[in-house]
Amino acid sequence: MGTLPASAEEAVARLRREVGDIHQELVRYRLVVWTAGNVSARVPGHDLLVIKPSGVPYEELSPRDMIVCDLDGTVVDGELSPSSDTAAHAYVYRHMPHVGGVVHTHSTYASAWAARGEAVPCVLTAMADEFGAEIPVGPFALIGDDSIGRGIVETLSGHRSPAVLMRSHGVFTIGKDARAAVKAAVMCEDVARTVHIARQLGEPRPLAQADVDRLHDRYQNVYGQPGAAR
Amino acid sequence: MGTLPASAEEAVARLRREVGDIHQELVRYRLVVWTAGNVSARVPGHDLLVIKPSGVPYEELSPRDMIVCDLDGTVVDGELSPSSDTAAHAYVYRHMPHVGGVVHTHSTYASAWAARGEAVPCVLTAMADEFGAEIPVGPFALIGDDSIGRGIVETLSGHRSPAVLMRSHGVFTIGKDARAAVKAAVMCEDVARTVHIARQLGEPRPLAQADVDRLHDRYQNVYGQPGAAR
Amino acid sequence: MGTLPASAEEAVARLRREVGDIHQELVRYRLVVWTAGNVSARVPGHDLLVIKPSGVPYEELSPRDMIVCDLDGTVVDGELSPSSDTAAHAYVYRHMPHVGGVVHTHSTYASAWAARGEAVPCVLTAMADEFGAEIPVGPFALIGDDSIGRGIVETLSGHRSPAVLMRSHGVFTIGKDARAAVKAAVMCEDVARTVHIARQLGEPRPLAQADVDRLHDRYQNVYGQPGAAR
Amino acid sequence: MGTLPASAEEAVARLRREVGDIHQELVRYRLVVWTAGNVSARVPGHDLLVIKPSGVPYEELSPRDMIVCDLDGTVVDGELSPSSDTAAHAYVYRHMPHVGGVVHTHSTYASAWAARGEAVPCVLTAMADEFGAEIPVGPFALIGDDSIGRGIVETLSGHRSPAVLMRSHGVFTIGKDARAAVKAAVMCEDVARTVHIARQLGEPRPLAQADVDRLHDRYQNVYGQPGAAR
Repeated sequence: MGTLPASAEEAVARLRREVGDIHQELVRYRLVVWTAGNVSARVPGHDLLVIKPSGVPYEELSPRDMIVCDLDGTVVDGELSPSSDTAAHAYVYRHMPHVGGVVHTHSTYASAWAARGEAVPCVLTAMADEFGAEIPVGPFALIGDDSIGRGIVETLSGHRSPAVLMRSHGVFTIGKDARAAVKAAVMCEDVARTVHIARQLGEPRPLAQADVDRLHDRYQNVYGQPGAAR
Repeated sequence: MGTLPASAEEAVARLRREVGDIHQELVRYRLVVWTAGNVSARVPGHDLLVIKPSGVPYEELSPRDMIVCDLDGTVVDGELSPSSDTAAHAYVYRHMPHVGGVVHTHSTYASAWAARGEAVPCVLTAMADEFGAEIPVGPFALIGDDSIGRGIVETLSGHRSPAVLMRSHGVFTIGKDARAAVKAAVMCEDVARTVHIARQLGEPRPLAQADVDRLHDRYQNVYGQPGAAR
Repeated sequence: MGTLPASAEEAVARLRREVGDIHQELVRYRLVVWTAGNVSARVPGHDLLVIKPSGVPYEELSPRDMIVCDLDGTVVDGELSPSSDTAAHAYVYRHMPHVGGVVHTHSTYASAWAARGEAVPCVLTAMADEFGAEIPVGPFALIGDDSIGRGIVETLSGHRSPAVLMRSHGVFTIGKDARAAVKAAVMCEDVARTVHIARQLGEPRPLAQADVDRLHDRYQNVYGQPGAAR
Repeated sequence: MGTLPASAEEAVARLRREVGDIHQELVRYRLVVWTAGNVSARVPGHDLLVIKPSGVPYEELSPRDMIVCDLDGTVVDGELSPSSDTAAHAYVYRHMPHVGGVVHTHSTYASAWAARGEAVPCVLTAMADEFGAEIPVGPFALIGDDSIGRGIVETLSGHRSPAVLMRSHGVFTIGKDARAAVKAAVMCEDVARTVHIARQLGEPRPLAQADVDRLHDRYQNVYGQPGAAR
């Protein structure tokens, strides 16, 4: 185990609370069952992340349970074992410096697209707003080394979408902080479900690329309260 | 920012509470995720509306957060930015004087019909009661000017349905007040879902136009408590 | 308005509470939206029924709001208008003396079968237990006279099923009391949903009639606590 | 009725609480309606099991209501009748000594696969983790003798899956304790749903057997907190 630098203590304390609490949004939107999803956040200004412990029920998560790891996934502070997906989260933070939050779920509709290895086409204005493109499919990758992290980074680098459907597996989302990544996970399941249902009885009409571009640009720059997280 | 006339203060105070509170019905019936739907109400006797602020979570909405705008969508009272759909709401109030409430959602099944650009056929007695006809499809329209509002008004003018499926987007509903518009949004998703599911395994039987007419007339004039909002 | 006989007062007071409360089961199992379903109970030993008022939200229902009607549907006690489905409930009590409770919903999957005019085939042991047969389809009938009540009675007389899918409309269920009729409504939606989903990807295997008979006989005579309502 | 040995009293008291409480997970994940599912646990070191009473609503279950039976299903302690599925649970404990918990549900998607008599193919990494194989189909069996228990044991013996889809009926799951069996029931419905939805719009990609093996081995030996129930 490493050592938590004194200068990180305040941010870590805050993120233990925030990351612990925001798991409730995964529960509320039914994106997770049992203990199968997880959220992490980068500790700003430090090569550290805060992540959920492995196999602990969401209703029992306390700030104290959250684990602090370095960006190789080694535990620096915390009594429990970190999420078994920690290596993937850490890889993303190492290779995508603008990312401040990562979320992983097996949410039903998104995972169904992932099981077929099929991207969710961008056919709704809400999807153009949030994703700016289709939600892409990443490679099949086994847990245990950097394969999943590499698959996420390679798929999302240069892509507008903050969500990737990892083939035969589930969803990873990224954001400027944990809340933004959770929002992307919620919206990903929402549009994956709506487009699935639309396609059950025919073909959704495509959106013109120019309209997708305009919607995405506007939403990323205008929506919400000035200065607030979207 | 404009000025709130003294004669509107009492009605505005009441509508801030009512409009704020009734967003909980959108949450309860799972018509919205994150911050993506909104309700507004006309201030009776004034060219004003009360609407949800942009990007604020439903569980944090307080009466104080609600925004008062004039019917051009300009903020008259309130500290936050109004919903990014305010222009569409305002356009409806300007052009449909009998409308006292407007609701916008991306509810799943209704949005799926909207993604295919297909009207929901009137094949259930509950749908004849509430909508009196199919739920029609409005044009594809980009946010940012009067296109969405114009599409709503052109589609619903002279139509019995209080709900319109805006193509590739979502639902707008109207009512004599906010509660009636919310009810239309709830019923719209309910019948969009039931008719979708019916069609998954065959064709729902059509209702005769004369039966639709009789049901709609009876429901609009007899149902509920005398003098109460339906 | 008629007069409530003194000998009925105690039973009516109890049933106002019980019928009011059991509407919460319709909400809990998501069988109803807004104010669209209703429960009634016969007042034992009297030609009276207790039923939900029309158009009142479920969360506001108090025992005082419940309406007492005679078996022609005329209000005998209560301040509000009774459910607009009162005539159908009353007809059932007039013609089926063993029935002590009636429930009406537009629950999604059952209504989807009703929209196609298709009976739910008996392909699950739980369905053989509770329904002992397919869930049959009743005629299309308009509200406003005895058509709906007659359709329910004609379809369920001599049928094992306590539930009927009224064509293009919704579900009516019967039971020895309100709780049994609510249970039938809950189970009806549950099996309508499961059989629908089974059929989406193929054909459910039929149950042999002899097995349906054995299961139904056993469940009706053995299940649950001795002497208790099932 | 038999007699509860003094040496079992402490374990029985604990299991009455634990088994009673864990039924709430079946409700929370919507695996059961009304009173239709049940959980049991073996009393360690005794030929006894603790199980839900028959036909009692989940929200009214208290530790006192739980029934203690011997492994022939005869009641040893408790005032109510045990679950009508007790014989199946008892048969499993008699023939599978490593099993400490059994769960039975009619959860929707799993029961839909069971109604078609079709195994859920192993096409998701989460399914490889938990089930290590397809979720197999057991025989059609009537309640009332050892047929259901025998079907469960014959299907699951030598199979990695802790869940079996009993044909035209529902799901039985096993685990080292009640919590593990409930987890298997929750995950079974989750993957049955996701794979169903994936197949609605095409074919999920198969997982290579070697990948299934690696995932299952890792999950069974590495996941969660050291020494904790998974």
